[in-house]
Amino acid sequence: MPERIYNFSPGPAVLPYEVLEQAAKDVVNYQGKGLSILEMSHRSKDFTNVINEAVDLLRELMAIPDNYKILFLQGGASTQFAMVPMNLLGPGKTATYLNTGTWAKKSIKEAKPFGKVVVAYSGEETGFDRVPEQGEYTVAPGSEYLYLVSNNTIFGTQFHQFPDVEPYLVCDMSSDILSREVDVKKFGLIFAGAQKNMGPAGATVVIIREDLLEKTPENVPTMFRYKTHAEKNSLYNTPPCYAIYVIGLVLKWLKGLGGLKVMAEMNQDKADLLYKAIDGTDYYRGHAQKNSRSLMNVTFNLPSPELEAKFIAEATQAGFDGLKGHRSVGGVRASIYNAFPREGVEKLVSFMKAFEQKNRP
Amino acid sequence: MPERIYNFSPGPAVLPYEVLEQAAKDVVNYQGKGLSILEMSHRSKDFTNVINEAVDLLRELMAIPDNYKILFLQGGASTQFAMVPMNLLGPGKTATYLNTGTWAKKSIKEAKPFGKVVVAYSGEETGFDRVPEQGEYTVAPGSEYLYLVSNNTIFGTQFHQFPDVEPYLVCDMSSDILSREVDVKKFGLIFAGAQKNMGPAGATVVIIREDLLEKTPENVPTMFRYKTHAEKNSLYNTPPCYAIYVIGLVLKWLKGLGGLKVMAEMNQDKADLLYKAIDGTDYYRGHAQKNSRSLMNVTFNLPSPELEAKFIAEATQAGFDGLKGHRSVGGVRASIYNAFPREGVEKLVSFMKAFEQKNRP
Repeated sequence: MPERIYNFSPGPAVLPYEVLEQAAKDVVNYQGKGLSILEMSHRSKDFTNVINEAVDLLRELMAIPDNYKILFLQGGASTQFAMVPMNLLGPGKTATYLNTGTWAKKSIKEAKPFGKVVVAYSGEETGFDRVPEQGEYTVAPGSEYLYLVSNNTIFGTQFHQFPDVEPYLVCDMSSDILSREVDVKKFGLIFAGAQKNMGPAGATVVIIREDLLEKTPENVPTMFRYKTHAEKNSLYNTPPCYAIYVIGLVLKWLKGLGGLKVMAEMNQDKADLLYKAIDGTDYYRGHAQKNSRSLMNVTFNLPSPELEAKFIAEATQAGFDGLKGHRSVGGVRASIYNAFPREGVEKLVSFMKAFEQKNRP
Repeated sequence: MPERIYNFSPGPAVLPYEVLEQAAKDVVNYQGKGLSILEMSHRSKDFTNVINEAVDLLRELMAIPDNYKILFLQGGASTQFAMVPMNLLGPGKTATYLNTGTWAKKSIKEAKPFGKVVVAYSGEETGFDRVPEQGEYTVAPGSEYLYLVSNNTIFGTQFHQFPDVEPYLVCDMSSDILSREVDVKKFGLIFAGAQKNMGPAGATVVIIREDLLEKTPENVPTMFRYKTHAEKNSLYNTPPCYAIYVIGLVLKWLKGLGGLKVMAEMNQDKADLLYKAIDGTDYYRGHAQKNSRSLMNVTFNLPSPELEAKFIAEATQAGFDGLKGHRSVGGVRASIYNAFPREGVEKLVSFMKAFEQKNRP
């Protein structure tokens, strides 16, 4: 194994090393078949196996009921911000949104042209430092869905429980899918860009309840209709083959570790380590309120922006990469997705302690 | 080099072996930087260099004028079928389309909800066995653009000259981009899925004249507006990073070969070899009329469907893969894109001769 940096990037993000080794081999010669995985027809038997295996593993790991379709699309979560209301809203229809940060705001903006959008909660005034409790907001009467972002990458907040509401939830799980067990039945639609917990950039997973495939208004273009892709097992047109293949490898790795229950314990353990270090001193201040803290993206501040800049520069020098907070909030953000090694968190904690000692104001 | 099959797949298709070797190395450790190209933030300096280099090389190789933007999008050419009219048409506006095959037909269908679509030519009655001459059709008065597919993968036809029309052409170049020199000034917009001549599936190149970025109606979602991506150098959201990176390697390889003029000569030479073999006997019959023959996809028939099935089965056995004609036309199709080696064409020609001798009716 070549020397690896500790990659705290919020996404594209760290992947398991054994996945990378296999993913590299198959770029030269896919399982000894004399061609690259990159060169393989999406209509071939081999690629059909690749995509079916990924679908089956995702269904198994997330315990996705049979009446849900699993799609691999393109365009990122940002495209879903529009596709969700294009397919599930319509003139005279209403949806309720929870504004818990940048990505929620963008999805609200994209939904507005397609129906009535009610924003039932906004964390804007407190710097999006928490997610709401279920009792704090009201789902607008007759809503087609309640939309929420399960984990807010930029602000480092996360829903630790999903609301029980009628008729169903639509959830952007881009930054915490596969990090824990989830009761899929609560959701009509889940989507997630792959590049945080699942694989490389370029694929977006959509998990959609079958009856919702019929909701799409007539004038929606073929490629933006979920049904187009559901009917063809994501092979209506050429899919992002390599990204799907790598997702399959990541899912196999996850299954090998013991699945989502084990993964959730590992994630809790890693995050605890880091939050304990933050809470053990007044030098570091966590951005998120304690009961909304994300296990995926740990956001914190130092006593001054100057010290934050120094911290990030010295950390980068020491082999900790991608720690700079999002440009819209500043500070430090450590993204510790599924594949991020515990050892890296331990070393960051040591670095934080040493930095504090040397740089107490 | 491990044993390689001859991969005649229409796409995803064969890539240069030296590109695959580099693309595999960087999956494990990108240029010795301690992380994979798959794990690299799209906001990093390294990835900014990757995308800028790809843009610059494409501009240089295709001699793209400065008043054109080069975008790397997702969703495949099929998404462009809708995005083109969403951005460039509108109520009361007209566009003219040339129906030269399956992909043209699909783009016509997708355009109809967005404006008036005039189909000025259709090759449907003669099995799409040719593309029209400029004098054969009339661009509808006031047309925003004339839409055409430069190379018809399924039927094996290709425009060898592009029409001179006002105000501009929109062209689906998915299956012959980079195969020859093209006068980009004739085009307002060129798009191409990467997975034939440019790289792996998952990226779509769009080359658009800057003034057209202002044409988009107001209600078009953010992700479906060309301007969104043009303003951010394709980094508005996370792009298909790995596909873009591999495209960059392919462009470097092309430049190393001598650019598009040299590539065009090599393509002509390879195609001549195959068409000569077809024309030298009445056993094989080319599908396309001679002056419309594609240099990328060579389509032909044998005396019977049974012999075609036998031909394909034995060819596959002998290491020639992907020769089966598209399900909508049958017969044999040999896709010989830029990266397909001359040696493979020579060997196929020998195989064809031997097959004919053994299987004369």
